[in-house]
Amino acid sequence: MTDDKAERHKSRMQQRKALVDAGIARATEVRGVVIVLTGDGKGKSSSAFGTAVRALGHGYKVGIVQFIKGTWECGERNILQTLPGVEYHVMGTGFTWETQDAEKDKAAAEACWTESEHLLRDPEIKLVVLDELTYILNYKYLDKDRVLDAIRRRPRDQTVIITGRGAKKYLEDLADTFSEVKAIKHAFQSGVAAQKGIEW
Amino acid sequence: MTDDKAERHKSRMQQRKALVDAGIARATEVRGVVIVLTGDGKGKSSSAFGTAVRALGHGYKVGIVQFIKGTWECGERNILQTLPGVEYHVMGTGFTWETQDAEKDKAAAEACWTESEHLLRDPEIKLVVLDELTYILNYKYLDKDRVLDAIRRRPRDQTVIITGRGAKKYLEDLADTFSEVKAIKHAFQSGVAAQKGIEW
Repeated sequence: MTDDKAERHKSRMQQRKALVDAGIARATEVRGVVIVLTGDGKGKSSSAFGTAVRALGHGYKVGIVQFIKGTWECGERNILQTLPGVEYHVMGTGFTWETQDAEKDKAAAEACWTESEHLLRDPEIKLVVLDELTYILNYKYLDKDRVLDAIRRRPRDQTVIITGRGAKKYLEDLADTFSEVKAIKHAFQSGVAAQKGIEW
Repeated sequence: MTDDKAERHKSRMQQRKALVDAGIARATEVRGVVIVLTGDGKGKSSSAFGTAVRALGHGYKVGIVQFIKGTWECGERNILQTLPGVEYHVMGTGFTWETQDAEKDKAAAEACWTESEHLLRDPEIKLVVLDELTYILNYKYLDKDRVLDAIRRRPRDQTVIITGRGAKKYLEDLADTFSEVKAIKHAFQSGVAAQKGIEW
């Protein structure tokens, strides 16, 4: 690399740093946020669990509620349940197309939501993960207003992550951060089987 | 819920299950895949780390290479480095706009890639995470063909996850699964500071 090129790189990076630093200087509000991860692409639940590990790595307490899932062994649960500082609840019914029983699913969702409300009232809990909550809301297994209300009333420093496909407008309105994960390509569509350690 | 409504739900779920089961029956190829998580939205690296925890939870070995990052304490690293079965490498230079030194960044990227190549040759490693690799490729700090070649020649059962903004077409072509995380909203833009345990 010529000195000239190196100088240009340095100058561009100085300008970029000024922009980044100005952004950081503007972001001064310190509080927990609501993060919604939706869309049909891969990576929503794993992102929530990755953030849980991040919070635990700083010694914070984390609450995790897995809606829908819980009928099969799950790699992240094997680890997370052994770490100190984690409260873990699992709805445990499995997919709606497996149970085929709306009444049973609804009762399980209610019980799971009661656990979530405890977490959402506890100022000791830094992060609450509500994994796959969107399905429960979209199937109307829970009263939407009850859910939104409990999230809005949570302790100021608590962050909530909601995952699942098809998040509606009211979740976008509630969210501070709203990411849509788009599946541009998915291995499953080209005939590759889901595998242990990657998909579950 | 009336019996009629419950019956209709059951019938819809039976149809859905038939579709899901047919999809599973078609996906018979068993091999590792390349997953690319790109886009400007929140959740790419945390998703890769969540998947690493998932793989570890089943007793698999995992290799993690963090490009760019590494100058500050990082929650997920605190935990992951203590778990058995993890090989962890960190480039440790920080953002390009912090170093402002292309030559130094390039040398660090080279050293980090040599570690990645070891992981990509080791059949004992189930999952290799190449966190923030897209920046290194886009800045041309590494030879693209050398990178693609090493990923293509990896052991058949090994999965690779590449994260970072601005993944190019050649990464989409290489990928089995390609997710684009779109930022519909971001708390930082509305003045909320990034916080320990959530953003790092």
